[in-house]
Amino acid sequence: MTKPESKRSSVAAFSAPGKSATTEQVNNGSVDSGCPDQSSSSAGRAKMVKQSSKESLHRRNTETEVFDDGTNTFFWRAHTLTVLFILTCALVYVTLLEETPQDTAYNTKRGIVASILVFLCFGVTQAKDGPFTRPHPAYWRFWLCVTVVYELFLIFILFQTVHDGRQFMKYIDPNLGVPLPERDYGGNCLIYDPGNTTDPFHNIWDKMDGFVPAHFLGWYIKTLMIRDWWMCMIISVMFEFLEYSLEHQLPNFSECWWDHWIMDVLVCNGLGIYCGMKTLAWLSMKPYQWQGLWNIPTYKGKIKRIAFQFTPYSWVKFEWRPASSLRRWLAVLGIIFMFLLAELNTFYLKFVLWMPPEHYLVLLRLVFFVNVGGVAMREIYDFMDDPKFHKKLGQQAWLAAAITVTEFLIVVKYDPNTLMLPIPFFVMQCWFLGIFLILIWTVWRFFIRPYVPVRTLRSSDQHLLLVPPARYRARGERAFSVCAPKLWKQLPLTVRLAPSPPTFKVRLKTYFYSLAYPAEIV
Amino acid sequence: MTKPESKRSSVAAFSAPGKSATTEQVNNGSVDSGCPDQSSSSAGRAKMVKQSSKESLHRRNTETEVFDDGTNTFFWRAHTLTVLFILTCALVYVTLLEETPQDTAYNTKRGIVASILVFLCFGVTQAKDGPFTRPHPAYWRFWLCVTVVYELFLIFILFQTVHDGRQFMKYIDPNLGVPLPERDYGGNCLIYDPGNTTDPFHNIWDKMDGFVPAHFLGWYIKTLMIRDWWMCMIISVMFEFLEYSLEHQLPNFSECWWDHWIMDVLVCNGLGIYCGMKTLAWLSMKPYQWQGLWNIPTYKGKIKRIAFQFTPYSWVKFEWRPASSLRRWLAVLGIIFMFLLAELNTFYLKFVLWMPPEHYLVLLRLVFFVNVGGVAMREIYDFMDDPKFHKKLGQQAWLAAAITVTEFLIVVKYDPNTLMLPIPFFVMQCWFLGIFLILIWTVWRFFIRPYVPVRTLRSSDQHLLLVPPARYRARGERAFSVCAPKLWKQLPLTVRLAPSPPTFKVRLKTYFYSLAYPAEIV
Repeated sequence: MTKPESKRSSVAAFSAPGKSATTEQVNNGSVDSGCPDQSSSSAGRAKMVKQSSKESLHRRNTETEVFDDGTNTFFWRAHTLTVLFILTCALVYVTLLEETPQDTAYNTKRGIVASILVFLCFGVTQAKDGPFTRPHPAYWRFWLCVTVVYELFLIFILFQTVHDGRQFMKYIDPNLGVPLPERDYGGNCLIYDPGNTTDPFHNIWDKMDGFVPAHFLGWYIKTLMIRDWWMCMIISVMFEFLEYSLEHQLPNFSECWWDHWIMDVLVCNGLGIYCGMKTLAWLSMKPYQWQGLWNIPTYKGKIKRIAFQFTPYSWVKFEWRPASSLRRWLAVLGIIFMFLLAELNTFYLKFVLWMPPEHYLVLLRLVFFVNVGGVAMREIYDFMDDPKFHKKLGQQAWLAAAITVTEFLIVVKYDPNTLMLPIPFFVMQCWFLGIFLILIWTVWRFFIRPYVPVRTLRSSDQHLLLVPPARYRARGERAFSVCAPKLWKQLPLTVRLAPSPPTFKVRLKTYFYSLAYPAEIV
Repeated sequence: MTKPESKRSSVAAFSAPGKSATTEQVNNGSVDSGCPDQSSSSAGRAKMVKQSSKESLHRRNTETEVFDDGTNTFFWRAHTLTVLFILTCALVYVTLLEETPQDTAYNTKRGIVASILVFLCFGVTQAKDGPFTRPHPAYWRFWLCVTVVYELFLIFILFQTVHDGRQFMKYIDPNLGVPLPERDYGGNCLIYDPGNTTDPFHNIWDKMDGFVPAHFLGWYIKTLMIRDWWMCMIISVMFEFLEYSLEHQLPNFSECWWDHWIMDVLVCNGLGIYCGMKTLAWLSMKPYQWQGLWNIPTYKGKIKRIAFQFTPYSWVKFEWRPASSLRRWLAVLGIIFMFLLAELNTFYLKFVLWMPPEHYLVLLRLVFFVNVGGVAMREIYDFMDDPKFHKKLGQQAWLAAAITVTEFLIVVKYDPNTLMLPIPFFVMQCWFLGIFLILIWTVWRFFIRPYVPVRTLRSSDQHLLLVPPARYRARGERAFSVCAPKLWKQLPLTVRLAPSPPTFKVRLKTYFYSLAYPAEIV
């Protein structure tokens, strides 16, 4: 229902063959000259300091405009010297004024914790900023440092023997380091159990544990990370397939069919994705105007401003467009693969490190990934979408990838036997078929019928015209015209090429068409 | 002899009282309008891409102009994905394909080393760049990461008991962790020893060990860091005073008087500073024009270009001007204090951690400080000189300060007895007198007779005019005119306010004058 939202600016109108004359006229440059005028007039309209980042020139269509009056209060200033001074005082107090215990093990632990805290002090003050600045850049620097510490911890664990590694967890929580009892999520799969007279639906109520809101919340956040309905749905469905395929390895992957498809995919994930897409739509429409708190006259405005501090500073719509080039296609496949691997790691890691599912470290890891994943996904998108200005893969994305790989290596090293359990033949066949189909499609799409860039113009009435290349028109493929949904809502009468609102079928077709032959702003 | 070099652009001309009419005329703005014309014509002259960093607007007078054709070859591109891929391969090989040893201690050590290496991988690829870019930004990112690791190592050591900390060094080198034999640098101080008939100068030859070139080289590099003749000399002399004052604590501070003043201050340090100042003069004069290697036609040019890769990308002259404001005065005092503390740490740290002076770790620490100190000093200068654009104290400076403090805390914690040895009464008196004089001067300079900003204009003939404030002129203080040495060399005839080249006495007076009432470019 909400799928076109993230595609708003790329869903474009194909000119009908009969209207090619109009298109030619547009090609002659009469429209091109209109563009600068328009942008200069909008610049003149803006009274406040306009944050024109270098990307804004290149992503005019996906990035929101931001107005900021540049107020810089105490909380947003750097406090490098203050932090250094407080750190020094703390060190003097702890190491010189307090008596040092004679317990070597305790001191070692304290030394490591102190090193981590000093590293966090340094990082929160000095680390490189990422793409996010709200509620405070230091918040994201903190998570960057946590990422580094977590990755180094994983590397350390990776280099231990299996026994030492599991026992090492005892240093963090003395209750850890003991084998887990086995649990089984499958069992009785009857929705209506006539054998149980008191409550025949007891099987359903049994599944209604804390994982239902966790699934919902998880997918709500994942949608905010990925910002694309299709990718979310694919990952959500793929994960259920993975659960089916791997239930011979991890018993808690075995669920009832209705638990897989109705409870997980439809109810929890689907609802989470739906709410996520609604939030994305709101975030991409809301104005990004930042005023200093003291510049706002009313109390209501002040409170609103404080609440808005926890919303993004600006907004970039993600248009993954996987089919537009081989690079993007491989990138999207890679992202889906890493995403699924990270999800599987959640389950395998607690299995091999003997962590009970309700342990606080498991929860902390998820909180960690919530904070890291959003930044990483944005950095990956920037790197993929705009490699001219984002020459490096972002630091958080780099670390997230390294962490996913390291976690997987730990799983492989700690329990190769489970991972090597023979996969059922039928499951193998399905996966080979899937991979084969993807390969065939890739070869067909990018080598046999490679992508021909489609010339697009932004006309003066803000109406995108998408002209199919000559060879497609020559082949008699029916080019069809439809305006972008946003424009269709706003300007129903000025749309010349699509005088009547397009039907749902046409919109859907346009959507798929735009995936295959996406609009390129000339 | 080389002292005015670093002050070239701030040494300015005082207008003689009789010529105040000229100055008034300049005040009327006829010259101000000339400035933009001049700068625009020079911009037009530049055919290549001009790297106009944001500082360049504010530090036109101290920063060199840079021309760069923007060539970006393989070596200067980011390789985040390549590094990630190689890291993954290495991890797979080491942890999955190699057999894990069963030795827990060995694995722990290997895990820590691996964590450090992964951290370096991450940092060299992704850490925030500092002010230096030559020979390669990754080189400076590497040293930043080493700084972080060293600081965390120090913090860990700081939290151990004295015995554990010293024994911990055995993990790095099994030969460490044993008490040091005492050594004495004093003894026979006769320059000409008539008792020794074969070689009466044997006392001098005895001192000619590896520390003589080390001192020279050390001060050569320190001069390149500090970039100011006076500050170098003050630190050099102060350190000999410190050696005198602390020889009751560390016996190897006790040297013969001629070793202190002739060998160290005059010969080794003095020569090092002299050569350093000559290099600084060359660096501030040389053109900063960067062409891609393949854009240079001749072989000689290519070789020269490769050699120049190891010189700075651009150059900023340091004008510390300690007396110009209380902030700068305190900053310079703080820098000198931290510098001396870091120098003392070299000696005390090896004393308390039982490191023999010729141990490779001692040498490594010095190599480390050479690479870190230059960046840190530049960042401190930027922070002090231009706080509008350098709102944060640089990361390397922050870490260098934290390291100096942590090293000192280790010294205090590990050997409080040595540090608490009573200081001789005479030495105490001297230090109290010194601190008292500095205090008095500070109060006098910044509170009793606070600094009155001096209005300076850049005239059309690039001749700085320094106008003493009215109250100084009114008090009959003789304002004197002298041109900047650089201009005096270049334009001896166009200098109107100082028609004859100023004498050495006048230049010296100007220098001190400029310290007290520095030129402010309006």
